[in-house]
Amino acid sequence: MESLKTIEIIGTAAFGIAGTFAAMEKKLDVFGTFIIAFITALGGGTLRDVLIGEVPVKWLLEFSAGFVVLMSTIVGLLFKSAIKNFHNVLLFFDSIGLGFFTVVGIQTGISLDMHPISCIALGTITACFGGVIRDISLSNIPLIFQKEIYATTCILGGAVFFLLLKLNVPIMPVEIICLATIVVFRLLSVKFNWHLPRIWKTEKSASQ
Amino acid sequence: MESLKTIEIIGTAAFGIAGTFAAMEKKLDVFGTFIIAFITALGGGTLRDVLIGEVPVKWLLEFSAGFVVLMSTIVGLLFKSAIKNFHNVLLFFDSIGLGFFTVVGIQTGISLDMHPISCIALGTITACFGGVIRDISLSNIPLIFQKEIYATTCILGGAVFFLLLKLNVPIMPVEIICLATIVVFRLLSVKFNWHLPRIWKTEKSASQ
Amino acid sequence: MESLKTIEIIGTAAFGIAGTFAAMEKKLDVFGTFIIAFITALGGGTLRDVLIGEVPVKWLLEFSAGFVVLMSTIVGLLFKSAIKNFHNVLLFFDSIGLGFFTVVGIQTGISLDMHPISCIALGTITACFGGVIRDISLSNIPLIFQKEIYATTCILGGAVFFLLLKLNVPIMPVEIICLATIVVFRLLSVKFNWHLPRIWKTEKSASQ
Repeated sequence: MESLKTIEIIGTAAFGIAGTFAAMEKKLDVFGTFIIAFITALGGGTLRDVLIGEVPVKWLLEFSAGFVVLMSTIVGLLFKSAIKNFHNVLLFFDSIGLGFFTVVGIQTGISLDMHPISCIALGTITACFGGVIRDISLSNIPLIFQKEIYATTCILGGAVFFLLLKLNVPIMPVEIICLATIVVFRLLSVKFNWHLPRIWKTEKSASQ
Repeated sequence: MESLKTIEIIGTAAFGIAGTFAAMEKKLDVFGTFIIAFITALGGGTLRDVLIGEVPVKWLLEFSAGFVVLMSTIVGLLFKSAIKNFHNVLLFFDSIGLGFFTVVGIQTGISLDMHPISCIALGTITACFGGVIRDISLSNIPLIFQKEIYATTCILGGAVFFLLLKLNVPIMPVEIICLATIVVFRLLSVKFNWHLPRIWKTEKSASQ
Repeated sequence: MESLKTIEIIGTAAFGIAGTFAAMEKKLDVFGTFIIAFITALGGGTLRDVLIGEVPVKWLLEFSAGFVVLMSTIVGLLFKSAIKNFHNVLLFFDSIGLGFFTVVGIQTGISLDMHPISCIALGTITACFGGVIRDISLSNIPLIFQKEIYATTCILGGAVFFLLLKLNVPIMPVEIICLATIVVFRLLSVKFNWHLPRIWKTEKSASQ
């Protein structure tokens, strides 16, 4: 449980810092930066909870995640240049966040007796749609709609999750392997620049 | 009931294809294209259900509509050029979707004993706000805020619905006439390029 | 209670007119203008109610607020130039709306026995996020993320609210003082052009 809490904090902080950087690129002020960091880290879980009716949403009842976002916003704002030098560390933390939030979303679906497809959808929404709402809020087309290995990674991790569950692997190792699969696949996909096809690649502007 | 299911599939597929084309214009990849098609077809109903508290939303519990969207995305991606030649067929299907989703939204309001105004609002949200969320997600100002005969058509159809109900017409014919009104009015409004006034038409840029 | 109703109408109308003007700048048609005015005035409360599960949302059950928005849209469209001359009056009304909606949101949180931080968050969401959703719908980066004294004013008002409550001031004067604080601080912040820091102000484009 200790280590679970650590993973949650790492994931939330990584997403919060990613949001802080996105907000700084648009030159928001400190309040706007915090809100965008908050949306990035907690927006996916919020959308999930609204879609399934788990309301009031958790961050209105319990402040630890919001506090982590606040801290990561402050750290992001103050140590911008320093942090950017640790690009690989950030990517690693971000991958942990991706894996962790996917597992949390899948577990939410399981706790509601939902079909594996729904559980994987909830995992993907939890992990990816904070970034989607952030991008839309900043007048950008969501990045993961253009370079979707991000979301595909969550779907793949979810498939591994239910495959192992079907093979009667106990839930704890299933969660760990799912998280590890997502982290590894995410790191590999960035390293080797994997991406899904766009259909109009014959067109001149396909390189975007 | 058979024919109702057929109408639902036609409407969902038409909306899904419209979403697929909108996503292709922005050069999204296949995942993003599917999500945009999904939002176009099911986003209006999702917003409706969130606003009235009918959660978990239906597409998390039942996959047929999502499957239709998936199929229409694939068809849209593969046969883009061919489909575009059937512009009039698409418009006709899209009109059926508009009418069908309006009727579904109105029925949802009636099942909650809501006022006709609320029912018509729910019908319009169901039919039109998937496209609104799609446009916002793609960083466009929603089309129906600029050329609103689309939403007005749903409102008109809703007014016809409750007028007939008041005249004690049985519910089945009321639904059919409402749907037909929307289809016919939609086709006419496209053919004759009807649109509502913008107030600043004296300005030079009024032609948009 | 009479005066409360008056304040609600003033606030809703001011927000509706602000939304109408924002929509006119983007040259929307009359339907789109009404929807944007509606979102501006009632979007914050809607988001609040969805996040806490107070659904169906109020405007589907009760039409007085929607009617005020409709009236303010019509007035805004017809008397655009005339109204713009009363810039200071509008600002004053808008400030009243800001204060009123903040108090309403705080009270919603209190009625659910929420922590003061949650109550202030709900107050800020109620007062500010209608404008946020409006800006996103119009493909703008939300203004209050860039010049955040707006939201900060609500947070300040909320802090005053709970400070007074802690000092055993009765609820009625607490609400009035909270509202007055927000109005006064808002007017002062506009007059003296207060704004929160952006971190990258050393950069050339910091003047935005």
